Amino acid sequence: MAAVAEANLDTPNVPRIIRWGILGTGTIASDFTTVLNSLPNTEVVAVGSRSQEGADRFGDKFGITVRHASYEALAADNRLDVVYVATPSLRHVGDCELCLQAGRHVLCEKSMAPGAPEAKAVLDLARTKGLFFLHGVWSRFFPAMAALRDVIASGKIGTVTSASASFGQNDGAGACSAVLETGIYCAQFLQWAFEDDPPDAVQGVVANMHENGLDQHVNALIRFPKGRVGDLECSLRNPTPRAAIICGTEGVITVPFPFWCPTKFTVQRMTGLGSQTWGEEEVFEFSLPDISGDFNFINSQGLAYEAEEVNRCIRGGLIESPQFTSSACLSVMEIITSIRDQFPVVES
Amino acid sequence: MAAVAEANLDTPNVPRIIRWGILGTGTIASDFTTVLNSLPNTEVVAVGSRSQEGADRFGDKFGITVRHASYEALAADNRLDVVYVATPSLRHVGDCELCLQAGRHVLCEKSMAPGAPEAKAVLDLARTKGLFFLHGVWSRFFPAMAALRDVIASGKIGTVTSASASFGQNDGAGACSAVLETGIYCAQFLQWAFEDDPPDAVQGVVANMHENGLDQHVNALIRFPKGRVGDLECSLRNPTPRAAIICGTEGVITVPFPFWCPTKFTVQRMTGLGSQTWGEEEVFEFSLPDISGDFNFINSQGLAYEAEEVNRCIRGGLIESPQFTSSACLSVMEIITSIRDQFPVVES
Repeated sequence: MAAVAEANLDTPNVPRIIRWGILGTGTIASDFTTVLNSLPNTEVVAVGSRSQEGADRFGDKFGITVRHASYEALAADNRLDVVYVATPSLRHVGDCELCLQAGRHVLCEKSMAPGAPEAKAVLDLARTKGLFFLHGVWSRFFPAMAALRDVIASGKIGTVTSASASFGQNDGAGACSAVLETGIYCAQFLQWAFEDDPPDAVQGVVANMHENGLDQHVNALIRFPKGRVGDLECSLRNPTPRAAIICGTEGVITVPFPFWCPTKFTVQRMTGLGSQTWGEEEVFEFSLPDISGDFNFINSQGLAYEAEEVNRCIRGGLIESPQFTSSACLSVMEIITSIRDQFPVVES
Repeated sequence: MAAVAEANLDTPNVPRIIRWGILGTGTIASDFTTVLNSLPNTEVVAVGSRSQEGADRFGDKFGITVRHASYEALAADNRLDVVYVATPSLRHVGDCELCLQAGRHVLCEKSMAPGAPEAKAVLDLARTKGLFFLHGVWSRFFPAMAALRDVIASGKIGTVTSASASFGQNDGAGACSAVLETGIYCAQFLQWAFEDDPPDAVQGVVANMHENGLDQHVNALIRFPKGRVGDLECSLRNPTPRAAIICGTEGVITVPFPFWCPTKFTVQRMTGLGSQTWGEEEVFEFSLPDISGDFNFINSQGLAYEAEEVNRCIRGGLIESPQFTSSACLSVMEIITSIRDQFPVVES
C-alpha cells in the first residue's frame, strides 16, 4: 500500500490517479463507470458484485480487470482509493459502513440512508476514520446549479421568497420510497434555493402510501426562515412536470425538465405595479461533458461533475466536499425525515 | 316596466336584449363594458358611481346615457336586467345585496365575499328572490377550460392524481388579500381539475401576512378525496410563474401563463416503466373573441365568455349557471375559508 501511494503522488503536471472500485452492478453503476472510464487520471480498478458471474459480466463490459465476488472483498481491496456504492438504496448504510471500516473513501449513490439519524451515523464514521464521504446527490455539481446561485446573488430576481420542485415518474411504486428516490432531489433543490438555510418546519404533508407501507406519492409544504416557503412533490406512481421554480420579489427562475440534472434555466423579471406580463426571458444553457456511452439515465454524462469533485477532494486530502458539506447533506436528510415523520401509518 | 319586458321578448331569430348596469367605474369595469359593448343583443343601459362626476366620465367614455351618482340609484333603476358589481372586493357583499334586494340579477366580480358564510348569505338571498347570481370567476367560461376537462375525461393522462396552480404578481401587497384576489383563481382551478369534488382538508398553510393583517403571500396544500392533492401559491408581493398543472397516472397537462384566462394548454403523456422522458407534447390553442379595445388586463376579451353565459342564463330564466353552480361557487369559497382559518394572527 505504501508503495502504491508513493508511486501515485501528484506531480506539478500529472495529478495523482484516483483508483475507483464499483460496488454494485446495476444501471446507475453502469452509467457511472462509463463516465469514470472517460476521465483523465482516473482508473476503475475493481468491481464487486454479489456473485462472481455478475462481477465478471460487469468487468467484461467495462474492461475492469479485478472482479470481486462479494462486496466485502471489494471493500477490502487495498488498491482502491474510493468506492462508489451503487447498490439498491435500502443497502446503502450497511455498504457505506463496510467500505469506511475497510479504510475506503466513499461516494454513495442517493439516497444514502432512510433518514437523518442513519445518515449522521455514516458521516460520523467517515469523520472518525478521517475518510472522504460524499452523498451522491449529483445535481449539486452541475454548472447550471452554481450559475443559478450566481443569478440569485446578483439580485436579478430580488429577494428569494419561494421555491418548488416536482419529480414524479411512473416506475417503481411500491418497490421504493418516493421521497427517498426522487423527493431527495426536490429537497436538495429547495435547500439550494434557500442557501442551505435549514427549514423552520414541515407545515403540511399529503402522502399516498403503497399497501406495503412505502410512500408512493408525496406532497410537502415547508416553511423556511424569513417567511420563505418551499413545496415539493415526488412520486413513483405517476409523472409530474419534473421542473423546479424559484420565485423572488422581482422575478422567477425556472429550471425545466430534468431539473435534477440541469443543463438549462430561464430567468424572467417582473417589476412594476399592476404588471400582468413577464419581462424578456433570459435563457442560460450549459453543455454536458462530451462523453459517449450507452447511458440508462437522462444526462448521465453529468455524473462527470460529481466524479471529478470526488477526485479533486481526495487529491486535496479533503474529507468532505465544500460543494456539498456533511452539514448540507444532513440538512437535506432532515427535510426528508421531517416529511416522513408526517406519513400516515399503513395497516398491514 | 311591463311594456319594456314585452317589447324585449325573444323571437325565434332575435334573442331578447339583456340590459346591463355597471356598478363601479374602475379598470375591470372598463374592460367589461368594452366587451359588453361588442356583444349582440346586449345593452349597457346605465352606470353607477359614488359621484356624478365619476359616472359621467365613465358614461362619456363608453357611450352610456344613464349615469347614476350613487350605487343605490343604479340598483333601483328598473330598466336594468342585470348589474355587474365591479367595486373593490371588500364592498362586494353589500353591493350584491343592494342589487338583489332591488330585484336585479347580479354578476359579481371576484372575490364575491371574504369567505363561505358571507358567500352563502348572498347566494341564499338570490335564490329567495328568484334572481340570477354569478360569481365572476371568469376562468370557468373559457373554452380552454372545457377542453381541458374533455382531455381528462378522455383518459389521456390516466387518473388525475394532483394539481397545482400559482398566481403571484407584485402589486397591491397590503391593499388586498392575496388569497381573495389571486388565490381564488388557484382554488377554482384545483376544484375544476378534481371535478368539483370538495376537498377533505387543508393539510398545511404558509401565510406571510402584511403588518395590516392582510395576507400577502400564501401557500396551501390541500387533500382531496381518493388520495388526490392540490397545492396553490398566491401572492400580491412577488411574481410567480402563474401557470397551472394537472398530473395524472399517465401524463401531465400544463396550462401556461396566464392560466386563469387560458388560451392554450399542453398535454404530455408518459407511460412505461423507468421512462425518464416525456412523450410528444400535444398543444391545444384557442383564439380569444375578436374584440378590440383599450384593455387594462391580459386576455380581457375573454370576459365575453362570461358575459354571454350571463345573457344566456337570464334569457333562459335560470338563476344559476350550470357551468358554475352555486354549489361549485361555495366549494371554492370553502377552500378559501379553510385556508384563511389557518392564517397566523397579526399583532396590531
